[in-house]
Amino acid sequence: MPAPVAAEVARYHPEALHGFVTAVLARLDVPEEDARLAADTLIAADLSGVDSHGVARFAGHPAYVPGLRSGAVNPRAMPRVVAEAAATALYDGDGGMGVMVGTRAMRVAIEKARQAGCGMVAVANSRHFGIAAHFARMALEHDMIGVAMTNAAPQVVQPGGATATLGTNPISIAAPCGDEPAFVLDIATSVGAAGKAEIALRQGKTLPEGWLVDATGQPTTDPSVLFGRGGALLPLGSFPELAAHKGYGLAVAVDVLCGVLSGAGYSAILDPRSWSTGHFFAAIRIDAFRAVPAFGAMMDQMIRSLRAAPRVPGLERMYVHGERELETERERRARGIPLHPQVVASLAALTPELGVPMPEPIA
Amino acid sequence: MPAPVAAEVARYHPEALHGFVTAVLARLDVPEEDARLAADTLIAADLSGVDSHGVARFAGHPAYVPGLRSGAVNPRAMPRVVAEAAATALYDGDGGMGVMVGTRAMRVAIEKARQAGCGMVAVANSRHFGIAAHFARMALEHDMIGVAMTNAAPQVVQPGGATATLGTNPISIAAPCGDEPAFVLDIATSVGAAGKAEIALRQGKTLPEGWLVDATGQPTTDPSVLFGRGGALLPLGSFPELAAHKGYGLAVAVDVLCGVLSGAGYSAILDPRSWSTGHFFAAIRIDAFRAVPAFGAMMDQMIRSLRAAPRVPGLERMYVHGERELETERERRARGIPLHPQVVASLAALTPELGVPMPEPIA
Repeated sequence: MPAPVAAEVARYHPEALHGFVTAVLARLDVPEEDARLAADTLIAADLSGVDSHGVARFAGHPAYVPGLRSGAVNPRAMPRVVAEAAATALYDGDGGMGVMVGTRAMRVAIEKARQAGCGMVAVANSRHFGIAAHFARMALEHDMIGVAMTNAAPQVVQPGGATATLGTNPISIAAPCGDEPAFVLDIATSVGAAGKAEIALRQGKTLPEGWLVDATGQPTTDPSVLFGRGGALLPLGSFPELAAHKGYGLAVAVDVLCGVLSGAGYSAILDPRSWSTGHFFAAIRIDAFRAVPAFGAMMDQMIRSLRAAPRVPGLERMYVHGERELETERERRARGIPLHPQVVASLAALTPELGVPMPEPIA
Repeated sequence: MPAPVAAEVARYHPEALHGFVTAVLARLDVPEEDARLAADTLIAADLSGVDSHGVARFAGHPAYVPGLRSGAVNPRAMPRVVAEAAATALYDGDGGMGVMVGTRAMRVAIEKARQAGCGMVAVANSRHFGIAAHFARMALEHDMIGVAMTNAAPQVVQPGGATATLGTNPISIAAPCGDEPAFVLDIATSVGAAGKAEIALRQGKTLPEGWLVDATGQPTTDPSVLFGRGGALLPLGSFPELAAHKGYGLAVAVDVLCGVLSGAGYSAILDPRSWSTGHFFAAIRIDAFRAVPAFGAMMDQMIRSLRAAPRVPGLERMYVHGERELETERERRARGIPLHPQVVASLAALTPELGVPMPEPIA
């Protein structure tokens, strides 16, 4: 089921948007190959329906155009391995765009896994990296399992907390199947992301109990608390009696791997102005453990059995992680990526200064 | 805050219980070293307050004494590496006790990490392995981060599901600090464990909304649905609007690593009679990334800032994962392990047949 799209929203060819992003980055002094990698990551988010992490952020988010202009993001970053062992690397992003650094670091993890069976790469000195799933999925074509995580500046409270101390710290894990689509998990360790609250606020709606606390740590359903009013998101689990300590602990574990192991710093000490972040990537070569076809066949069997699980009356379909995103991608590759008029306007506003024409929508 | 203990509960020296377990296993044809490792894991659970996973299970659970007697568990298992690369191994538990197989497999992961920077070991043909944290913690004394997971026979529904298809599939991650106690996360990917429901049932209590569904997938607070009535636990997140798909996805990811990568089988196809399970272990050598003292200092800083986070009025203390268990362990090492009279009776019942005297409680 592709994400619902309002009728008046214009759609754009993925390739046309990719070309636009690449050309804008080139004007901002980003080398061609890096610009292409960054555009790959952003367009991948739009294709899979994660609209909040795609070109919607490109013109206004400090990790992209504004950061390249202000110097908070290094356009000519030279990311590199600064320490390594047979299966591991510490990677310095050199202050470059996370959407580019992430791809280069994941390539190192994959190469390590080719040699050693698995590879792990911790990344410091990077910036906001877009959707974690893009990097985890890179492992799939190599018959590997991929893992990607990042930390982020605080937006989430500990259970019982009154001030945000944790990032949304997402985890993505991708595993190839045989004939079935890959299993692709990509989840924030908070109950939800601030983007959902922004949408609810715009629509004058509330969020369910269990998403938010206000500036004193009291539960609220009012999404406006997140915007300049000192409120915060709750960790996965939401309430102490529903095991919110688990989402809290997962967020800290992500910080250990992304922030402390890399030296980037844990969420609460990241510099929010530069959107500095740390990442962690892993790749696991399946045939270091067992034959790829046998692995794929068992994955298929598991996916099919999850999809066929007995369910409550009225629930039409049981999803497995990655299916919705794949269906959205197929639809958007065929019909184009829908962009909200505000997003179109933000991108078109780059044209006068940079001389890169905004693509025409699909008729 | 150690777990509360009723006044009439007798306490036992950890070493005395360890000796008892080891001696019983020896009578059941388990080699001395394997018996010692198994006892280490069980007593570690009791020391850290996870009473459901310690000696309480020893006399009656099919993965321990009854399994060794019936042949479902191999007393003289010869677990071994059956495939390997520089940083990985596939490990065959040879049908032995998981509480022993887990330790041996984690040692392989640690040795791989010593050589290659990180190590990953997938385990097939093992049995219920007790508490995941015991194996993750093994990494700490080597200045490594440890990871341990296991799958298990189904007790948990997918969101909207009416039949359990997922195990409680726990994840443990342990990371050393400098002066602070280690960070030790050990969580089921379900909202809670069946053990809590058993206790509630015994006490005539209900569980919170969000823990359970009945045999038709409808929410219930009645813990009896789990016992022969076709009910199930909910995944972490509990409700669709509180992101239960995240707990569901984490459970599947654990199954990919423990069940599919190892070939043990995912939760739904495990043989529940033999308590067959698959595990996954990883170790990450910190100094392959950065200097251990710098890592430890940043961990200390993070732990202290989490502990000092502003909180709601009335909340006395903010815990970090591993603290409660460590405090319980200190108290129990000093005062002994409290055992419920039913547990004492179950252990004492082994004496007549096996000739191993039950230790005396601490006066």
